[in-house]
Amino acid sequence: MGAETGSVEAGGDRFSQDPAFAVHEGGKLAVRPTRPIETREDLALTYTPGVARVSSAIAAEPALARRFTWAPRVVAVVSDGTAVLGLGDIGPAAALPVMEGKACLFSEFAGLSSVPVVLSTTDVDTIVETVVAIAPSFGGINLEDISAPRCFEIEERLRARLDIPVMHDDQHGTAIVVLAALRNAARVTGRGLGDLRVVVAGAGAAGIACTKILLEAGVGDIAVADSRGVLHLGREDLNPVKRWVAEHTNRAGYAGTMTGALEGADVYLGLSGGSVPEAAIASMAPGCIVFSLANPIPEVDPEMAARYAAVVATGRSDLPNQINNVLAFPGVFRGAIDAGATAITERMKLAAAEAIAGVVGEDLAPGHVVPSPLDRRVATAVAEAVAACARDEGVTR
Amino acid sequence: MGAETGSVEAGGDRFSQDPAFAVHEGGKLAVRPTRPIETREDLALTYTPGVARVSSAIAAEPALARRFTWAPRVVAVVSDGTAVLGLGDIGPAAALPVMEGKACLFSEFAGLSSVPVVLSTTDVDTIVETVVAIAPSFGGINLEDISAPRCFEIEERLRARLDIPVMHDDQHGTAIVVLAALRNAARVTGRGLGDLRVVVAGAGAAGIACTKILLEAGVGDIAVADSRGVLHLGREDLNPVKRWVAEHTNRAGYAGTMTGALEGADVYLGLSGGSVPEAAIASMAPGCIVFSLANPIPEVDPEMAARYAAVVATGRSDLPNQINNVLAFPGVFRGAIDAGATAITERMKLAAAEAIAGVVGEDLAPGHVVPSPLDRRVATAVAEAVAACARDEGVTR
Repeated sequence: MGAETGSVEAGGDRFSQDPAFAVHEGGKLAVRPTRPIETREDLALTYTPGVARVSSAIAAEPALARRFTWAPRVVAVVSDGTAVLGLGDIGPAAALPVMEGKACLFSEFAGLSSVPVVLSTTDVDTIVETVVAIAPSFGGINLEDISAPRCFEIEERLRARLDIPVMHDDQHGTAIVVLAALRNAARVTGRGLGDLRVVVAGAGAAGIACTKILLEAGVGDIAVADSRGVLHLGREDLNPVKRWVAEHTNRAGYAGTMTGALEGADVYLGLSGGSVPEAAIASMAPGCIVFSLANPIPEVDPEMAARYAAVVATGRSDLPNQINNVLAFPGVFRGAIDAGATAITERMKLAAAEAIAGVVGEDLAPGHVVPSPLDRRVATAVAEAVAACARDEGVTR
Repeated sequence: MGAETGSVEAGGDRFSQDPAFAVHEGGKLAVRPTRPIETREDLALTYTPGVARVSSAIAAEPALARRFTWAPRVVAVVSDGTAVLGLGDIGPAAALPVMEGKACLFSEFAGLSSVPVVLSTTDVDTIVETVVAIAPSFGGINLEDISAPRCFEIEERLRARLDIPVMHDDQHGTAIVVLAALRNAARVTGRGLGDLRVVVAGAGAAGIACTKILLEAGVGDIAVADSRGVLHLGREDLNPVKRWVAEHTNRAGYAGTMTGALEGADVYLGLSGGSVPEAAIASMAPGCIVFSLANPIPEVDPEMAARYAAVVATGRSDLPNQINNVLAFPGVFRGAIDAGATAITERMKLAAAEAIAGVVGEDLAPGHVVPSPLDRRVATAVAEAVAACARDEGVTR
């Protein structure tokens, strides 16, 4: 019986030039027993007849499942493959490498097991019923790469149905890290969040969630733009989520394009793709902040942005200030699971952002407003903050 | 960030007397990356941006998912917890230790990853739709501990809907090992399968599947009994599956109790629990074979059986001739997956039984009709036989 790999001939093929394919050969995950099974005694304790005593005990006292099964410490990474990275609706099989990658990061950064669950359906009702049906197998549900606005309804319904943490990472992971970075960017430029007028480019999953968390954190004013311009109550093409945003943002009353709103703005937050002309960035307020998160090509050229902005952040690993969700999701789930939280609340997300910002500490500088994604202190700090918040709020089992 | 364990105080508690609980502390499984993620380069290849190139390649050419994702080598162990071991309908949380144990064995004996999926529903339609929805995440579906007759319909419908191997192990794993053991028991007592008249006690998942495989393998005659007696066409209380059995068995026309049918029979196959009186065993044919598989208490006391039978087998690990499904399921799924099989066929099951019987080889003896469940040669032999059969039948992708 060989190792667990695909059957591949040695030597060069058309994938051998790109090391990403070598890393993916045979998949990136393995499930293994935590203890060896070598003797009849091992077999009799791990499986029958010994396992029957453990199952009987849990049947009599369900809370024992937290102690004697793996499920409470397993996060399902659930996707229907409809909004994968910048690639769009590529389906479940093509989405799998992303979900496997996410599962790797849960293990590496939070010591949690994680299982990719990609779905053969894109129907909202079926997705909700499927996740509810498999939920007893898991301690948390990380929704991933599900297209907007479906992702909002799916997350909302699952949060209502399940008593384990559920989080759509494209929304809230991004929002948490953006808030952490913005908090430090404001600090390093001598301002508070309340002093900032922000323009959010993009009203998809991440744009909406960032807008909500920035409102909760007390940002001064926000204008949110989709491809048709700034969201305002005079528009008649808004879905319910965008209408909510229009009701809660844009106190300045912009009704034109995103670039119009940028004039004199303190912060540009790009979550949309596309490109922003230099003149628009040049029209922003002095000491402005540019977070341009489209990957791999930021909406605003980072070199150009640096000519006008006091702080520039991107999603790219080869530039300073990388906004990477891995700073948030491992610690958020670990903290929620450690505390036995039944949900991930708004306060827990704000606490996570505060913790991420706090890790930067004395090293705060315009080129260092967020920790490195490889900084192992981050997940620990986030987990502790989230767990403390969960206990404080009493949303634990 | 600590190790992945439950929060448990050191020292004795009410579980410390039973080593089975120590083995289950924190769960028995972990999901881990196959390669370390330590540098920015590791992160950029395992996750963004590198993963996007792999996802794009799979989107363009779906067959690449077999090579560059883990899913084709992951078996989901799916249960609704309605018929767990001898414990009955104990629900998903209490069933989890059994499913985790099964997943451990897939890893240990077949090098496959395996994920327990326990369900919050017992509705047949919902179970089928749920498994179909999550199927792109897996390379095989092992159904487990689902009560009869629901298990028959669930398996049948999933086999029709999915193009990956689906097998209800309580049916077919048991049937394969029973056939292997019976083949060797006949051989060691100088008979062929066609010479044997068999009485099957129990018409649940295992009883029905054993009956079917024994018919396919050419056993002479079979009488199957449920708690109300031998199945025959005169009975009006039979569900469709039992009616099918009545139509295809009992050529001798027994219409009474199981013990009545045992008189002069060559084989007793107990899959029912309960107990069989000594007089009934004493009434069997000379050189008879007793397989008494209820666990932990066999239907026929093994010491008593030995006074009348030439071969005695049980499900117990502390006695000779242990009939244990672990002899079958790891190799069956490994072989089907290695061959890229789209289903597990009847011929593949017969080939698996032949392979298990073959491993005993020269060591065949009345007290050794099946290999030890720890014999690592078994899964390899079964996998090779099943894969060869799949290729020969052309049921591969």
